[in-house]
Amino acid sequence: MTLIRAWAAQKAGGPLESYEYDPGPLGPEEVETAIEYCGVCHSDLSMLDNEWGMSKYPFVPGHEAIGRIVALGEIAQEKGLKVGQRVGVGWNARSCLHCRYCLQGEQHLCTTVQPTIVGHHGAFAERVRAHWVWAVPIPDGLDPGQTGPLLCGGITVFAPLLNHGVTPTQRVGVIGIGGLGHMAIKFSNTWGCEVTAFTSRMSKADEAKSFGAHHVVSSRDPGAMKAVAGSFDLVLVTANASLDWDAVLSLLAPKGRLHIVGAVPEPIPVPAIALISRQMDMSGSPTGSRAAIDTMLDFAARHHVAPKVEHFPMSRVNEAMDHLRAGKANYRIVLDADFT
Amino acid sequence: MTLIRAWAAQKAGGPLESYEYDPGPLGPEEVETAIEYCGVCHSDLSMLDNEWGMSKYPFVPGHEAIGRIVALGEIAQEKGLKVGQRVGVGWNARSCLHCRYCLQGEQHLCTTVQPTIVGHHGAFAERVRAHWVWAVPIPDGLDPGQTGPLLCGGITVFAPLLNHGVTPTQRVGVIGIGGLGHMAIKFSNTWGCEVTAFTSRMSKADEAKSFGAHHVVSSRDPGAMKAVAGSFDLVLVTANASLDWDAVLSLLAPKGRLHIVGAVPEPIPVPAIALISRQMDMSGSPTGSRAAIDTMLDFAARHHVAPKVEHFPMSRVNEAMDHLRAGKANYRIVLDADFT
Repeated sequence: MTLIRAWAAQKAGGPLESYEYDPGPLGPEEVETAIEYCGVCHSDLSMLDNEWGMSKYPFVPGHEAIGRIVALGEIAQEKGLKVGQRVGVGWNARSCLHCRYCLQGEQHLCTTVQPTIVGHHGAFAERVRAHWVWAVPIPDGLDPGQTGPLLCGGITVFAPLLNHGVTPTQRVGVIGIGGLGHMAIKFSNTWGCEVTAFTSRMSKADEAKSFGAHHVVSSRDPGAMKAVAGSFDLVLVTANASLDWDAVLSLLAPKGRLHIVGAVPEPIPVPAIALISRQMDMSGSPTGSRAAIDTMLDFAARHHVAPKVEHFPMSRVNEAMDHLRAGKANYRIVLDADFT
Repeated sequence: MTLIRAWAAQKAGGPLESYEYDPGPLGPEEVETAIEYCGVCHSDLSMLDNEWGMSKYPFVPGHEAIGRIVALGEIAQEKGLKVGQRVGVGWNARSCLHCRYCLQGEQHLCTTVQPTIVGHHGAFAERVRAHWVWAVPIPDGLDPGQTGPLLCGGITVFAPLLNHGVTPTQRVGVIGIGGLGHMAIKFSNTWGCEVTAFTSRMSKADEAKSFGAHHVVSSRDPGAMKAVAGSFDLVLVTANASLDWDAVLSLLAPKGRLHIVGAVPEPIPVPAIALISRQMDMSGSPTGSRAAIDTMLDFAARHHVAPKVEHFPMSRVNEAMDHLRAGKANYRIVLDADFT
């Protein structure tokens, strides 16, 4: 049995320390991947800190992994995968394939879906395991060092465009210009939409434009918010903070959609009359299906869409986590595996 | 000039009294209809009481009118309408036809839409006027004495089925078994769905079943609510009261939709995590487009869907309004015009 070397916290909020574990025998449907790169997502921090009350320790974060297959279970060998092939492992690592949602191609909504870092050791490690359906082949045209963040953050902001019939003729607003938001701006622009970025820090305006925002509006300027009220077909909330929801709702045109992907802490107060009078939609979504991820990767490869990333060697993972915790990530962090 | 006799309140909450007004010359795009029947909707009461702060007095309620055309403006004559033809006039009486929403066939979302009883005398009257687009031909197969309520209440609960891709294989929950709710049960059943009615008064259970509910669940019984949690594709809220929203949201299956048509008074608190984790949708809608109303009337005629109504002669309109105000309407009131 070959142990897997990893970076693990022994307790909530603890530092990540060198750790080895025995993964046991490889299951017939499993794929083991040797990690080259792993993105750092805000949910790695939330899980590290046990914010959601479902972390187990030792805890190995990491769910935006890019690497090469090193072993395939006997069933997994028959699913189009080969040892040596480059794959990604994102937020989810296991789905049952036989529930209603799996059967209809929405494996991310599987009734027993298992995220990569929940009850399972993640990809701040030498190797990681996943069910074959979540070992996602990476198209050749993508830079593997920039692709990890697409597997969680990227699909989170891409799926709403795909699932809700957004067309290139529409106006999209993106609230929050961070790890998720900057990818939302890039994808919405590439999708052909007119994109407005909303931010509380106008110092980010030029960078938002460089990502593809046609307009940048200060969410703290009531006059500027009012000037664009009623004009958006889709407003995507990537911020994980409570906002002035009346002002946000007023941005939408009749038949507009407010889509939430940020982990907003407080319940959002929604006046029925706002939904009714403007025939509005409000929705949310968690990452995306396997087919949606494949579609996103093809789209990203064809249009050269990639997150803006900062690299840290994985051995400096604690520094990377502190950088993220301090809100300094510019815009997404990728760890380069450096086990020797 | 022929005056129009009507029933009007002189002040907020006042009794409806005999009233005559001069409608002025008929506009080229207008249709004048002699009223045979007019449904009574809860919004007639809200407007009578100036609950929404937009009532003008003398106020003539009535926006679920059925009657026969008595006069057509010169443009309206060219729009397929004939004097003597039976038409209905519902919530809306005027749309501009040239704004973006009108041009895309959603005249009910017109940026300058004019409801029949807002800034305009309604149909508790001998005659009522409307723009030709809102003078809706009534198919022969419908009983005119039961059809008025379809033009506001009916389209309000029918439009969500039409607009949101509801299929006959889906499970629909209807919250509230009243004027709107009983029509929602009938339409959802006829649409082919499995229908569950939710009510705080289980004494209505048998009647809900007679309308087409396959199941009736007490919204006050946490165990019963829990037993059906996670199983609905669509939950339609027709009640205009604040509910236990966590319990309501928990009814939805992944990808389910909570659709609000009841004038819920308080903002609905929606946890972002509920929207995100189950990829939920939440929406609302105001009546429907002209084409949606035509589609509903054809569907109702073909399947013999009609509201359950109680008739009052229009001269006993105050008695009818008191009956509605007391929550005793069974299930929708229709006034029979009896001007002599």
